[in-house]
Amino acid sequence: MKQNIYDNPIFFEQYTALRDSGITANDFVEQPALKSLISSLEGKMVLDLGCGAGSFAKYCVENGASKVIAVDISKNMIEKARKENQHESINYLCSPIEEVELHNQSFDVIVSSLAIHYIEDYPKLIDRVISLLTENGEFVFSTEHPMVTARKEEISNWVKDSEGNKLHWALDHYQEEGKREGYWYIDGVVKYHRTISTLVNTLIEKGLVVERIIEPISIPGGVELRPKLINEERRPSFIVIKAKKN
Amino acid sequence: MKQNIYDNPIFFEQYTALRDSGITANDFVEQPALKSLISSLEGKMVLDLGCGAGSFAKYCVENGASKVIAVDISKNMIEKARKENQHESINYLCSPIEEVELHNQSFDVIVSSLAIHYIEDYPKLIDRVISLLTENGEFVFSTEHPMVTARKEEISNWVKDSEGNKLHWALDHYQEEGKREGYWYIDGVVKYHRTISTLVNTLIEKGLVVERIIEPISIPGGVELRPKLINEERRPSFIVIKAKKN
Repeated sequence: MKQNIYDNPIFFEQYTALRDSGITANDFVEQPALKSLISSLEGKMVLDLGCGAGSFAKYCVENGASKVIAVDISKNMIEKARKENQHESINYLCSPIEEVELHNQSFDVIVSSLAIHYIEDYPKLIDRVISLLTENGEFVFSTEHPMVTARKEEISNWVKDSEGNKLHWALDHYQEEGKREGYWYIDGVVKYHRTISTLVNTLIEKGLVVERIIEPISIPGGVELRPKLINEERRPSFIVIKAKKN
Repeated sequence: MKQNIYDNPIFFEQYTALRDSGITANDFVEQPALKSLISSLEGKMVLDLGCGAGSFAKYCVENGASKVIAVDISKNMIEKARKENQHESINYLCSPIEEVELHNQSFDVIVSSLAIHYIEDYPKLIDRVISLLTENGEFVFSTEHPMVTARKEEISNWVKDSEGNKLHWALDHYQEEGKREGYWYIDGVVKYHRTISTLVNTLIEKGLVVERIIEPISIPGGVELRPKLINEERRPSFIVIKAKKN
């Protein structure tokens, strides 16, 4: 059974309240980096793996994509997407992203925003991505940074002094890949830690060419609206990778 | 004036005692990873940037390299290399590696072991490397891991409890690239922190293809001889990158 925290009602309510605020790390850090790595959307067939409520799918059609297939494991998210980001050129599918069946279709751009740290079998997902990419197609994805997923402790990895000031980030267990359980609105949220070398080498071994890596900080203005984003300069929350099929 | 700590007599004495012990992180962690990334040395022209006392240059000729040019900024090191690792196929040169002049020569393999974190101008070094590589030539280098060079504090980044047990590694200032000054046998050793994205993207932007990244742990048996190498599993000391000129 694939994990599907987004269909937990408590998680879903709190998560969507956060995302709908429009001033999160996604808005100012992760999404700008992800978007900056896509060469062009004009006339492109796009596959969005882990589409959530569909805002990125909508962004793609608004920027010229000819069609977007947007996939998410969560029924809640797909329902929200169909309500809020419906478009004749977007087809929303409810499925685990590593098992999505898309017969005889191929895509110029495959994107995945912050979903891959939930996926246990990364090489299998990359195989699927490669089989769905056109020649010269691009795969652009973001995931939680390995410096963030590494440590096994469930408590925050910011070490603070007695007044609550952040002294430094605690790193540990970096080379021990695999499951990490933690609290994020609900108990027992499972993520998978992989090293940077595993993230990158798996792409290369399977035949993709790595074109760029971003460890993003906030875009200008973001820190003013959400001051804690200054911490992205102390350690990155996300890593964004672009690879191409040649 | 380029930094040249290896010609400081106190540093040189302590450093060479460490390296000559034969049971360091270099022997069990960094060198095996570096060597594993070189496709073949048989009949190859090799350039060794930051050759130290020449043990890697000697390894290259013993494994079939037709010629090795081995460069180091330190007169002490070059003298030691000429004494201990002399060979008719090795030419030792005393020069800053980013300024080495090698007219009309090109190399199948360019290696650099733990020298690049001393270099201020990384893009300039990569330009030099590319101009000296043959078509399909390989550039393989190790450097201190960005997780290790990031934090500005000069004290150890292992946070310990009152009994001296290592609790976790302290990470900070990751996105602030540039000079780091610290103590390593002597005061004021200068290194340059760069993020993983900068290390990788500079290679790609200048036209190399990134083929593999290793964040090495000890080879089997190393931890028995040098128990503290177990800490490489908690955070990597080194990153080793292979790139190719296509």
